[in-house]
Amino acid sequence: MNILVTLNSNYIKPLKVMLHSLFVNNQEEAFTVYLMHTSMKEAELSDINQYIVERGHRLVVITVTNDYFQAAPVVKHYTKEMYYRLLAFQFLPSDLDKIVYLDPDILVINEIRTLYDIDISGYLYAAAYHEVASATEINKLRLKPYDMDAYYNSGVLVMNLNLQREKIKEQEIFNYVEEHKKRLLYPDQDIINALYSQDIKNLDEVIYNYDPRYYRFYKAVSSGRKDVDYVIHNTCFIHYRGKKKPWHKNYTGKFHSIYKHYEKQALKE
Amino acid sequence: MNILVTLNSNYIKPLKVMLHSLFVNNQEEAFTVYLMHTSMKEAELSDINQYIVERGHRLVVITVTNDYFQAAPVVKHYTKEMYYRLLAFQFLPSDLDKIVYLDPDILVINEIRTLYDIDISGYLYAAAYHEVASATEINKLRLKPYDMDAYYNSGVLVMNLNLQREKIKEQEIFNYVEEHKKRLLYPDQDIINALYSQDIKNLDEVIYNYDPRYYRFYKAVSSGRKDVDYVIHNTCFIHYRGKKKPWHKNYTGKFHSIYKHYEKQALKE
Repeated sequence: MNILVTLNSNYIKPLKVMLHSLFVNNQEEAFTVYLMHTSMKEAELSDINQYIVERGHRLVVITVTNDYFQAAPVVKHYTKEMYYRLLAFQFLPSDLDKIVYLDPDILVINEIRTLYDIDISGYLYAAAYHEVASATEINKLRLKPYDMDAYYNSGVLVMNLNLQREKIKEQEIFNYVEEHKKRLLYPDQDIINALYSQDIKNLDEVIYNYDPRYYRFYKAVSSGRKDVDYVIHNTCFIHYRGKKKPWHKNYTGKFHSIYKHYEKQALKE
Repeated sequence: MNILVTLNSNYIKPLKVMLHSLFVNNQEEAFTVYLMHTSMKEAELSDINQYIVERGHRLVVITVTNDYFQAAPVVKHYTKEMYYRLLAFQFLPSDLDKIVYLDPDILVINEIRTLYDIDISGYLYAAAYHEVASATEINKLRLKPYDMDAYYNSGVLVMNLNLQREKIKEQEIFNYVEEHKKRLLYPDQDIINALYSQDIKNLDEVIYNYDPRYYRFYKAVSSGRKDVDYVIHNTCFIHYRGKKKPWHKNYTGKFHSIYKHYEKQALKE
């Protein structure tokens, strides 16, 4: 299975936790992890490579030098790393047809083979949106060039690379950013939603993009069925969105102890 | 290492979760689990035996028939199982000098070798008391035959079997129960505290008898140091005391997700 991550030095530990959880809960699989970065140090990359190889998988480092994206507009304080997951298809091997992008603030707690094998022909991405947040986030965004009835989260993306190579135009993205840059809140996610929302296959958020902050909501709308037990047995990705992360001292959210459990396993010497 | 458990049919699943967590987090150890029971079915015992043997450990079943404890007074709705952990030393092999008793509503999340090796010479037990609850519980009990400044929890007990054989008299316990039976709330625990509280070596409750309901208290009195991270790295036993158990639908307490995580691992086919 092909996994895409993008990374800067602040996220090395969470990335290891995410990968560890992915590997131990998908023991039948062989993973190739594609890591896109600009500023990682050689020693850091070599450390990550060792981490992955020791666990029986493979790392491919894609170094995006500053020459790329010269024509790309810059948004506020964001670096050009905001374009990585949008334009990853340009950097990945041309024979790759599918890859799963994962944010590093994710814990993988079940097998993901079913996700990897879903049929995404005709779609650029598969992704989930957070029902409870979607309306608010679309509203905040205040840009609806096309019909948009969901605001997809870009933390988990199944990418149809063949179709992306065909349909996604770098210049279209740059033009869009240039025109809207003052209004972009989460640039890459906003762009995916604004330009491609009709080309996204919808995933069940409870299974593929579970936000612990919405625990009560998920439980309530399922008449109590989608509780912690359900999540432990069915959810693939717990996505610790928001500013408070489970590796921070001040985290008070749900699914804290399981994160720390995996973190301990992942980071032990 | 010798582990003592007592069991009825309602607690088979939690027992498996407890044992699974004990085994996976103490991989260097070989365990002999002594299981005291009266009413377990043959098939249930054989299932537990298989569970333990498959994981490389050993089960010794101690069947306590109704002939035992004929002289023992009965308290309210409690069965004579209330005497098991008090008088276990009478049923265990005479060459055993030490055993750790564990309640089945416990999760073992770190190595317990340090506990097993503590020096308990001169003490009948090692146990922890819950600082935040102790005063209340002593007060509820309203029986202080000796000096009692802590109300020890009997869910985790290191037992000094040699000294117990010497000092604990069955008849003294029966007499005590006969005299106080109307006031006993948690009979076995009350008896240990009332009769032997001066012979208990005190253990750190955060390490050896962590009650998730006191999460904020533990954190507050340690100036924030004993948080979830600390527990994951240092605590041996999370003890899910109280009526709401983490395997119940309505559990809302802390350390839920880690319990369900181990439960899933422990009970998978």
